[in-house]
Amino acid sequence: MRIAIDAMGGDHAPGEIIAGALQGREVLDDGDEIVLIGDEAVIGDQLTALKAPADTFRILSAPEVIGMNESPIEAIRRKPKSSIAVMAHAASHRQVDAVLSAGNTGACVAACQIRMRTLEGVARPGIAVVLPTYGGPVTICDVGANIACKPVHLYQYAIMAGVYAREMFGIESPRIGMMNIGAEDAKGTDLIKKTRMLIKNDSTLNFVGYLEGHDLFEGKCDVVICEGFVGNVILKLSEGMANMVFKALKAELMSRNKLLALWFKSVAKSIFKKYDYHEYGGALLLGVNGTAVICHGSSKARTVKNAIAACKKFYDKKINDQIVHAIETSSVTNNGQ
Amino acid sequence: MRIAIDAMGGDHAPGEIIAGALQGREVLDDGDEIVLIGDEAVIGDQLTALKAPADTFRILSAPEVIGMNESPIEAIRRKPKSSIAVMAHAASHRQVDAVLSAGNTGACVAACQIRMRTLEGVARPGIAVVLPTYGGPVTICDVGANIACKPVHLYQYAIMAGVYAREMFGIESPRIGMMNIGAEDAKGTDLIKKTRMLIKNDSTLNFVGYLEGHDLFEGKCDVVICEGFVGNVILKLSEGMANMVFKALKAELMSRNKLLALWFKSVAKSIFKKYDYHEYGGALLLGVNGTAVICHGSSKARTVKNAIAACKKFYDKKINDQIVHAIETSSVTNNGQ
Repeated sequence: MRIAIDAMGGDHAPGEIIAGALQGREVLDDGDEIVLIGDEAVIGDQLTALKAPADTFRILSAPEVIGMNESPIEAIRRKPKSSIAVMAHAASHRQVDAVLSAGNTGACVAACQIRMRTLEGVARPGIAVVLPTYGGPVTICDVGANIACKPVHLYQYAIMAGVYAREMFGIESPRIGMMNIGAEDAKGTDLIKKTRMLIKNDSTLNFVGYLEGHDLFEGKCDVVICEGFVGNVILKLSEGMANMVFKALKAELMSRNKLLALWFKSVAKSIFKKYDYHEYGGALLLGVNGTAVICHGSSKARTVKNAIAACKKFYDKKINDQIVHAIETSSVTNNGQ
Repeated sequence: MRIAIDAMGGDHAPGEIIAGALQGREVLDDGDEIVLIGDEAVIGDQLTALKAPADTFRILSAPEVIGMNESPIEAIRRKPKSSIAVMAHAASHRQVDAVLSAGNTGACVAACQIRMRTLEGVARPGIAVVLPTYGGPVTICDVGANIACKPVHLYQYAIMAGVYAREMFGIESPRIGMMNIGAEDAKGTDLIKKTRMLIKNDSTLNFVGYLEGHDLFEGKCDVVICEGFVGNVILKLSEGMANMVFKALKAELMSRNKLLALWFKSVAKSIFKKYDYHEYGGALLLGVNGTAVICHGSSKARTVKNAIAACKKFYDKKINDQIVHAIETSSVTNNGQ
């Protein structure tokens, strides 16, 4: 397979991204290829700095860069030669089989959606992120691609994320829950209640009902469906909350016993590693016609390597074919609703 | 002041609630009175068990109880003699100055809203919860009273929660942020963008802009405004996340050094105490014409005592008068929008 990597996107681009691409070769097969996209001179310099031969990767020239804070749609229009735009263009012309970026998430989603289009039958792509929890990995969809959800969108997220969790984590019949403000049937918005009926009526889905915020960490489900707005808050809140707890712990330990506080550092590190979503590399943009992985802006080389592994698995398992089949045979189609 | 307490509501009712009422007398003044609402025989038995004289509290008889999982509006209609309904009725007839319940939150909000009505000029009440963070207490409004928000509702939450944070925590000019999926102006739903304009145009509010999930814990703001759905997820997620981190820590420590794991227990306890929202007792239902405190279903005696203290402070500081004044002089009124 051929994976295009946006060498210019992310807080630590291009250094860490290119270092990650180098490491990523370990998880690929012989015939596989990584294509770096970005400013040729900058990429060349980085490869030299990393002591990699200049011809290690094929390079697709993209002299422009979309900043992390630029308005997505506008940036895509104004910068056709940006790494994200060139990347999506390459995918849409089947010059590559997968794309990967740690750059401006909104721009990346927009470019993939516009250029690669959606899979047959899919109404809206959704970003699926894997949150490592004490009860195992939980896939959350959507975490920010779609903040104007309709019931059919959420329903299709259940289908797509279900296929994803099954194939990526080997969970035979993933338990799917929907984020809500209470467990009772009468709770929630119209969107939630209508989606519930759609999911409940689909016997192929293992629906475990409504979830409340705390349920996410208690091993009650493998997949959580929610609007992009809610999912985005969940993702970033979890991140911030974990950081705060460890900060508070450090302060408390330092005030009690400095030696033990130092020892505790290694405990914290080991926990962080276990529950670090960088381990999963990136988020899959489910529903686009191709393989698109969106990495956290803070991605380092290890994250990129893991994202390449996720990309490869997603592609090799033909998850998109399975999604198309599942959507095709589902009870409500995009047009039918 | 006269505080009515729903003796029958909550996971640990009536025992812990009545024990909390007994403790709560410590934070009240001589002329203040607590009125217990519920089944007279049950309350009598509990007082005997707690070795308190039967005439310690005035009791208002309410033979019915609304279960934690009953549909709020329906339950209020079907059970006019429930503790929650009797409590709200007493408040609306000025027989008491404040109400407090750890029972069915939805039913409590509905009863207070229907019976006590809203303050002059307020469109919709909102629940304000205080989340203890490393950067200080953060007031979040709304966490579940209103899941069909309009811009004027969110704008008024900013005003009300701002007054609340100022008076309760002595923060002169509380920094108010709005939960969103990104920090840039162009990010978010229509609701968010319209609310932003309302808040920005009000020079009395110290608006610090959009917040992302992680910002909540980083001392960036004193008040967070959000839709009830999002706020509810935030609240419950924070709870679950903290529990998970400590569970993971315990497991990691046990696998390394059982003795240190035991020692760590006291560290964890001390942190839990510092960041325990039970310390703040309960959530204020801002915008109703009266003082209404909603406690967590898991409330124990200490929580109830702290909630009584919050109730007293809210009442003594005449926060409702200040809210009415702030709404009156605000740039957009309920009718004007």
